[in-house]
Amino acid sequence: MDIYEALYTTRAMRRVLPDPIPMDVQAQILDAAVRAPSGGNTQGWRFLLVDDHEVKAQLAPLYQQAIANLWQTIYADRVQAAAAEPDKPSSITTRKMMNSVQWMGDHFTEIPLLMFAFSAFDTSGGSIWPALWSAQLAARANGVGSAPTSILGIFHPEETFKILGVPTDQNWNLAAMVSFGYPKGVWGVAERRPAHKVSYRNHWGEPIGFEIDQPLWSPEA
Amino acid sequence: MDIYEALYTTRAMRRVLPDPIPMDVQAQILDAAVRAPSGGNTQGWRFLLVDDHEVKAQLAPLYQQAIANLWQTIYADRVQAAAAEPDKPSSITTRKMMNSVQWMGDHFTEIPLLMFAFSAFDTSGGSIWPALWSAQLAARANGVGSAPTSILGIFHPEETFKILGVPTDQNWNLAAMVSFGYPKGVWGVAERRPAHKVSYRNHWGEPIGFEIDQPLWSPEA
Repeated sequence: MDIYEALYTTRAMRRVLPDPIPMDVQAQILDAAVRAPSGGNTQGWRFLLVDDHEVKAQLAPLYQQAIANLWQTIYADRVQAAAAEPDKPSSITTRKMMNSVQWMGDHFTEIPLLMFAFSAFDTSGGSIWPALWSAQLAARANGVGSAPTSILGIFHPEETFKILGVPTDQNWNLAAMVSFGYPKGVWGVAERRPAHKVSYRNHWGEPIGFEIDQPLWSPEA
Repeated sequence: MDIYEALYTTRAMRRVLPDPIPMDVQAQILDAAVRAPSGGNTQGWRFLLVDDHEVKAQLAPLYQQAIANLWQTIYADRVQAAAAEPDKPSSITTRKMMNSVQWMGDHFTEIPLLMFAFSAFDTSGGSIWPALWSAQLAARANGVGSAPTSILGIFHPEETFKILGVPTDQNWNLAAMVSFGYPKGVWGVAERRPAHKVSYRNHWGEPIGFEIDQPLWSPEA
């Protein structure tokens, strides 16, 4: 697969089929992950794959609670705004995202593969997120959808560590859980605010010097 | 370029030529960045490209101080270990990294393009680092090397914000500066601890179920 197709069409794919991910694809995902850079090349990471139904069943209620917490805390303003003005484009986007997250909560044990990513000595996230994004891009190249979430680590770190057997005396931080599965939906280029509206040149507020009105890669081209 | 070639050969490339990066390549780098996912698709990011010599000249002494701080603080243990046992493989790796960072400090104003990435409402880094890694991968596909660093934001946030004109009342966090330029060196697959040595299945410490003794992609294949 071309690098641009991967970069432009890999989006959060939460609704997935229960079909298992073959071992050689899992190996490709993990091998791509460890090729990513980390600060000072410390590689302070561990990846824990979960495909056992029993372990997923233990995690499911925690994840479902974490979703409920998410709507009431971090996303409270957006949830209220979406309820107050349901026809606004931003409200529709919020509802779509909530439905997709809720779908994952309702079908948690059917997701074929979960990757828990732990980092050490990394406060910025810069030494774990490139590896996770590489894992998602390698998955995409194999037709596998993925979606990262931080909510288990935010709302239920202790219970999650206990279920997964993570040692608590080694400074591991649960950066994210990434779900993997063959997609129910279709791949596509996600809509974004154009680059020239979120970029400046040499000084905050100064124009970047070009306008990008359409994505520079598209499936038709 | 194939996705695997990009994922496997994009490594920190600090020694670069002073040749400018064409505008269309800069546009491709930024457009790839904004296609990346962010938590709840908030896109709470700004990208500030610096190619003006005068701005680089103002930032250079800060960057050089930040390097000196880095060796004395975050990397102090590694620097001492490298000095104490200079022939150990880990000491050689540390010295290589230090030389490369120091090269960038000494040639700061000659680096053709710097990207400062700012994030809002993102404590985990998960809403900015995928965009930065996408920018680096898109650069790689265009033959442009890159290297992220967080040290200006760690050691000199106030002075950096002032030079770049970043508003201080909007909660922007300088996630990283990424340097870009055509490489002096060659691309290659970086050495890493193999995936099966940093991965577990279903429970911390349990074997992942496969061994990956050679990178699953190589330039020869």
